[in-house]
Amino acid sequence: MIIDCHGHYTTAPEPHNAFREAQKARLKDPSLPEPVYPDISDDLIRETIEKNQLKLLKERGADMTIFSPRASAMGHHIGTEETSIEWSRRCNDLIKRVVELFPDTFIGVCQLPQSPGVPISHSIAELERCVNEFGFVGCNLNPDPSGGNWTSMPLTDKAWYPFFEKMVELDVPAMIHVSASCNPNFHATGAHYMNADTTAFMQFLQGDLFNDFPDLRFIIPHGGGAVPYHWGRYRGLADMLKKPPLDTHVMKNVYFDTCVYHQPGIDLLFEVISIDNILFGSEMVGAVRGIDPTTGHYFDDTKRYVDALTISDENKRKVFELNARRVYPRLDKALKARGK
Amino acid sequence: MIIDCHGHYTTAPEPHNAFREAQKARLKDPSLPEPVYPDISDDLIRETIEKNQLKLLKERGADMTIFSPRASAMGHHIGTEETSIEWSRRCNDLIKRVVELFPDTFIGVCQLPQSPGVPISHSIAELERCVNEFGFVGCNLNPDPSGGNWTSMPLTDKAWYPFFEKMVELDVPAMIHVSASCNPNFHATGAHYMNADTTAFMQFLQGDLFNDFPDLRFIIPHGGGAVPYHWGRYRGLADMLKKPPLDTHVMKNVYFDTCVYHQPGIDLLFEVISIDNILFGSEMVGAVRGIDPTTGHYFDDTKRYVDALTISDENKRKVFELNARRVYPRLDKALKARGK
Repeated sequence: MIIDCHGHYTTAPEPHNAFREAQKARLKDPSLPEPVYPDISDDLIRETIEKNQLKLLKERGADMTIFSPRASAMGHHIGTEETSIEWSRRCNDLIKRVVELFPDTFIGVCQLPQSPGVPISHSIAELERCVNEFGFVGCNLNPDPSGGNWTSMPLTDKAWYPFFEKMVELDVPAMIHVSASCNPNFHATGAHYMNADTTAFMQFLQGDLFNDFPDLRFIIPHGGGAVPYHWGRYRGLADMLKKPPLDTHVMKNVYFDTCVYHQPGIDLLFEVISIDNILFGSEMVGAVRGIDPTTGHYFDDTKRYVDALTISDENKRKVFELNARRVYPRLDKALKARGK
Repeated sequence: MIIDCHGHYTTAPEPHNAFREAQKARLKDPSLPEPVYPDISDDLIRETIEKNQLKLLKERGADMTIFSPRASAMGHHIGTEETSIEWSRRCNDLIKRVVELFPDTFIGVCQLPQSPGVPISHSIAELERCVNEFGFVGCNLNPDPSGGNWTSMPLTDKAWYPFFEKMVELDVPAMIHVSASCNPNFHATGAHYMNADTTAFMQFLQGDLFNDFPDLRFIIPHGGGAVPYHWGRYRGLADMLKKPPLDTHVMKNVYFDTCVYHQPGIDLLFEVISIDNILFGSEMVGAVRGIDPTTGHYFDDTKRYVDALTISDENKRKVFELNARRVYPRLDKALKARGK
């Protein structure tokens, strides 16, 4: 069984996106009427999925995707807490519908109604709603709801603890995932995403978060940002900062996905990171949708790169399935309930 | 001949550092007397160099270092423009003295008196002083003088053009190098440095700077941040953004150093980046000073990693010497004048 741990609904129905545009327009011009969330038919949802994620999933030979709202559209920096709550609920409701329409293929991960300066405890209700009512198995946590201004505290700060307590209680992991950037220095998918991945890892290295939360689990996407390429630097920095080795200090709680869009990068990832810490992911129909002229295949067809590795079948199974089931226990339970 | 393109005077004499502390103390308490820059003897400078950089350079078998003030101490975000001008001049004066004491081993690169919100044109005078009067061969350009708040415009913005014009006129490259971070999210050497490298590359990819400045040259240090590891992503993003291929769009003007502190990272760098775009560098006695327990050698002894590559002698010579002489023409001239 092949589980892609990193998929976003980047092809959401146009009326859903139009609602967001109307919401944003009203922020600029409060005299506009409050937008009404549109009726979206099952057929329209089916179409957007069947033509895109489902088609590619089948073509590439994967079975399931852990699916969440489009990350770049979370836009936590836009509007107020109320804006974010409404938009997050709409996005998560839509993911729930996808999961209901394609229960064998998709399982949900939720967007959180984060907002700059708003305590993260305000996101607990939406996490609970999605996990307890919809059967979602995790969440996307934005370490920078300001959208590139980085005005929050590091993830190791006690300000985040109420949310982490709830994650542990519900036994769900979070993928660390920023959204769009409103800082012109940072291209969203080319700089902000990578920087956030690298930054989060270094925060974990600097802190002692996992002493306080031994059962907390994070997926750092996009192959861990710059971290595996600079694995020697991070091992050396742990030493400089008098921290335990990374294996025990960070890597019992942190996982990287395989969203690295060329073979040499995947080769490096598997060379330096323990097989138990790597989850198959593609973020397909995402940041990089083209075909690599040097291979003739989609850049984001990361299964090809993993398939090309000379690792044992047992290790491949870990990366494609078992690690995901371990990191997302609620996914494992759901699969077992179906006899899988 | 082996030239290390990335060295900072991280072991500067204590009185020099004490002056900076006094300068900072006076910013907090203006009633303090204006600090007087101390007399620092040649012997003291010799000692700090001979026991550190020179010793390691010899042990590791390199010949020369392109040497600049300590990057993390530039602190462009501290105080006012005047603070930065005075500190930058002191730092560059000290580099000049090192170069005069060890002319065969060190050649200078200057710190710029950048300050948040101050036009970069105000840094031209110091660049000219260092290049024309001291024989320096380049500069370190900070894309984020705010120290982690990223309040400047991207490097492709016209606000930077007056400085780029001067760089081209003087025929000197800049290493893109941030300084300390005052944003608690970003550890300086573990996050801010990597993020700045990645960010600068993506800015160049997004923009068309090198159409306007075909002769402008930048070194992106620390092996290019996250970029080589994600080379597929960047090739794909260039395609998504309808830019020419990276080879022509960015890589005629951008170079990466070898400050990647483990063998797999160096292997990847050389696998994906053209040999003509890689300059040997170590940033030794820098961010990571320990010994890698898995090898028994210093993490930052990057020459060992390059030596271990199976590349031709001709290509090694490019990385160790010829590329640096091409990117820093004033270094080449200085060496030729000495019959090297």
